[in-house]
This record gives sequence, C-alpha cells and structure tokens, in this order.
Amino acid sequence: MENLLVIKIGGNVIDNETALSTFLQSIATIPGKKILVHGGGKLATELSTQLGIATQMVNGRRVTNKPTVKVVTMVYAGYINKSIVAALQASNCAAVGLCGADAQLLPAVKRPVSDVDYGYVGDLLKDKINTAFIQALLNAGTLPVIAPITCNSEGQLLNVNADTVASSLAEAMSKHYNTTLIFCFEKNGLLSDINKPDSVVPVIKTTGVDELKQQGIITDGMLPKIDNAAAAINNGVSKVILGHAQHIQQLANSTTGYGTHITR
Amino acid sequence: MENLLVIKIGGNVIDNETALSTFLQSIATIPGKKILVHGGGKLATELSTQLGIATQMVNGRRVTNKPTVKVVTMVYAGYINKSIVAALQASNCAAVGLCGADAQLLPAVKRPVSDVDYGYVGDLLKDKINTAFIQALLNAGTLPVIAPITCNSEGQLLNVNADTVASSLAEAMSKHYNTTLIFCFEKNGLLSDINKPDSVVPVIKTTGVDELKQQGIITDGMLPKIDNAAAAINNGVSKVILGHAQHIQQLANSTTGYGTHITR
Repeated sequence: MENLLVIKIGGNVIDNETALSTFLQSIATIPGKKILVHGGGKLATELSTQLGIATQMVNGRRVTNKPTVKVVTMVYAGYINKSIVAALQASNCAAVGLCGADAQLLPAVKRPVSDVDYGYVGDLLKDKINTAFIQALLNAGTLPVIAPITCNSEGQLLNVNADTVASSLAEAMSKHYNTTLIFCFEKNGLLSDINKPDSVVPVIKTTGVDELKQQGIITDGMLPKIDNAAAAINNGVSKVILGHAQHIQQLANSTTGYGTHITR
Repeated sequence: MENLLVIKIGGNVIDNETALSTFLQSIATIPGKKILVHGGGKLATELSTQLGIATQMVNGRRVTNKPTVKVVTMVYAGYINKSIVAALQASNCAAVGLCGADAQLLPAVKRPVSDVDYGYVGDLLKDKINTAFIQALLNAGTLPVIAPITCNSEGQLLNVNADTVASSLAEAMSKHYNTTLIFCFEKNGLLSDINKPDSVVPVIKTTGVDELKQQGIITDGMLPKIDNAAAAINNGVSKVILGHAQHIQQLANSTTGYGTHITR
C-alpha cells in the first residue's frame, strides 16, 4: 500500500505566527500524500470574550452553546483554515481547506445528553467517514486541510475534538494506505520528566501504556493523546508519533531521536 | 457539451433564514451539474460593529482593512459557507464549501493602489482559474459552494466581489460546459418600473443594454449586474438570467415568464 501521513497541528503552534509559518513551509516540502488536521488555538476564546459570550463550564468541561458553535465555525473553519491554506499556496502546495461537513467527510451525531449536556458537540460516526472523497483529493495532488467542525444529518453544525478527527481519519484511511499519524505540539514527545525537555520516551508499546500511567509518566493532557494514539494503532494505523512541530520533517521521516513512537 | 449551472445567491437572501432554507432545498432538487456562489449579507458588518472595527469609506466605496479581511474570511468562508454546506447535506446534496484560495481556485492580485487604496481586495486573474479542480468536484458528484474570499501568490487573503466570482467562474467553465449563469436576488428581474414588482423586462440583448441605460431602466445597483451579465455572454456563457431566489427552479429550467434573460 502507498504511504499516507496524517498530521495534526495543535493550538499552541497556531497561536504563534512565526512557528506556524515555519511549520507550514516545512509541510510544503514533505513529499508524498498527506492530510493536515488543525486545532483551534486561543482566537475563538478571544473572539467569544470580545463578543461577550460567556464560557459555560460543566464538571470542568466547556459547553458549546449556540453562539459558541457560530464562533468556532467562523474561527476554525473560516479564518484559521483559510489562513493555513493561503500560506501553503504561497509555498506552492495545492491545499484544499475543508471541514467535516464538506462532502459529508465526517458524519456525526450531536453528543447525547446524559449527566452533562455538552451542547453542539459532535461524536463522529467513524465507519461513515468519506474516505473516497479524501482519496480523490489526494489523487488530484492536493493536500486536504481539515478544521474540527462538522454537522449531523439535520445540518446542525457541531464542534469536534481535533485529536479525535485526526485519529479517526487516520484509522479510516488505513484501509487504503500505509498510514502514519503524527501529533505535532510544543513538546519533544512524551517526557519522562516534565521539567526536562529532552527526557523523551522514544518508544511506547500499546501494551505498556498502563504501566506508564501507573508510574505517573502519562498524566494530564498527555492521557487522551496517548489513549488516542494507542487506539489508532489498534485500529489499523501503522505508526503514531508525538513530537515537536519544529521537527515535522524528522518526524515525517521517522528519524531516530525525534518524538515518541507508539507501536504495537 | 454538457450543461452546467452557475448560481449566484445574494446577501438579502442569506440574511433571511427562512428564504435561504427554502432556496437551498430547491437547489438540492435541481438535477445536473451546478456551482453555487454566495455573497455576504449583513453578518460581516454586524460582527465588525460588535468588534468596534470602523468602516472605512473612500469615494463612497468600502475599504477592506486588515481587521476587516479577517472578519469577512470568518463570516463568508467560515460561518455562511459552512452553514450553506450543512443545510445542503441535510437535503442529501453532497456540497463542498470552498473559497478562492482553496486549490488556487481563483488566483488574484491585490488591487493596485491608484487614486484609492481599497485595501485587501482582490482582482481575479481570470485566465488562471483552476477549472480542472472544479471539473473533478463536479465529476465526483459534488456541488461546489464558493465564498467570495481568495488569496494572492504571497498567501495574503483578499476580499472579492461575489458577482465577479460568479461571472468569472461561468466564463472560465464555459470552455468545458454549456454554461448558464443565474443571478438570484430579491426581485423578479430587471424591472421597467421599480415600483411594479411584475414589470419584468423578459429579455435584454447585449446590444440593447446602452439604450436601457439611457432610458433610465438600468440604474443604480442593476448597472454592475447587467454589465457583468453582458460581459459573461460576450465571453462564452450561453445564457445569463436574473431573477428571484424563490423562483430558482423555474429560472434553472429557463421557464418562460420568470426572470430577465440576457442574450446575444
């Protein structure tokens, strides 16, 4: 099978104009088929604050109310998505900006209300992902750039988690490609000592995740990332790598000494 | 050659939630290949006001400054574009929302500064329109939905006139398709008496435009629309129709008695 890279870029890099620009220039030079999934960054929160939209929190988690889903659609699927696309065009990379609603790429349901009503948040219908449309875009030589917004079958726009979009897409595409999923963020990988940027755990086996949690090495924000990564491996993705956005070329080449590699 | 409809929907319909919903349900039932180009509506102005962004006017024309191009990208390429796409999905229409920056669909230059600096406004490079990408989307059975935002070769996002996007796209596509361009707005067509909604001029020949201007029948907002329409006819578009959004099915079928038809 042909190789495919699914690259997720997080909010901290998006908020840093210079870091984002450097990252996108690197992306443009990486050969082969690839998909870029981006997160949100601070702009949506800033815009909500400016517009006087109160942040609703339930059990420490943000609720996406009606004004908020409008803001995140404007910011994620509008400004951030098209700014990334325009920057890639300037590097001669034929990017196509999409969200999950386009071509029913990422069909979803509004998260059912149980103890908590998270509002306009989507749960992806993973077995209905429109892989044929992505394949057509890749075969046309374009780079799909995907914002974490989608809609349900009634046409209601929904906010979705960008890490979940990246891992679900990678899993679905792994039926057609030898797929590598790279989570780019502002750290060098999973650190065994959070205070030492170079204490990168080079390899994690999916069978070793529980032990690393018990040792307190996988904690806080890394918990969902590693769980997502392990799930992706168990669902057909060949390789998952977590690493620093500024090392995207080395991560894309699986160069030894860069990032944390999650393997079977 | 196969038939293609290029449909432009204006701001007044976009601002009316019920009218827009009805319009999109009609669009979904029209068979054959089609492209939808949408304008802006009042939301961008409302958002600018809420954010305290002053509207700059020079010689009665709006200037797109840096904060404004961010707002129009958010609103046109984000919220409006994805709301239209989501509504079309709900009608089982495989819409794909794009702006001119995507896949270098509508290459442009920033309008040169002469007497007036219009700011971040794009002039389309009409002979560089990426018709192959649109053809690929049409052949994949999808409906491209296009927002009037693009970028230049340096990756600067630019605001473009939606009527111009529609007519330029129709002209470029007319090399490959028997193309009909429909401008949908909130009137029944060109009215010979502005106070009589049914006084529609049924047919205008491009050679007769000057006379209608002298008679004061083509005035104000209709001037650029009719000029655009006549130019499209002269540049290869088979048919141009101006009419009411609520009659889109009749306009798409060229039903007698609906809209103003501009012909050679």
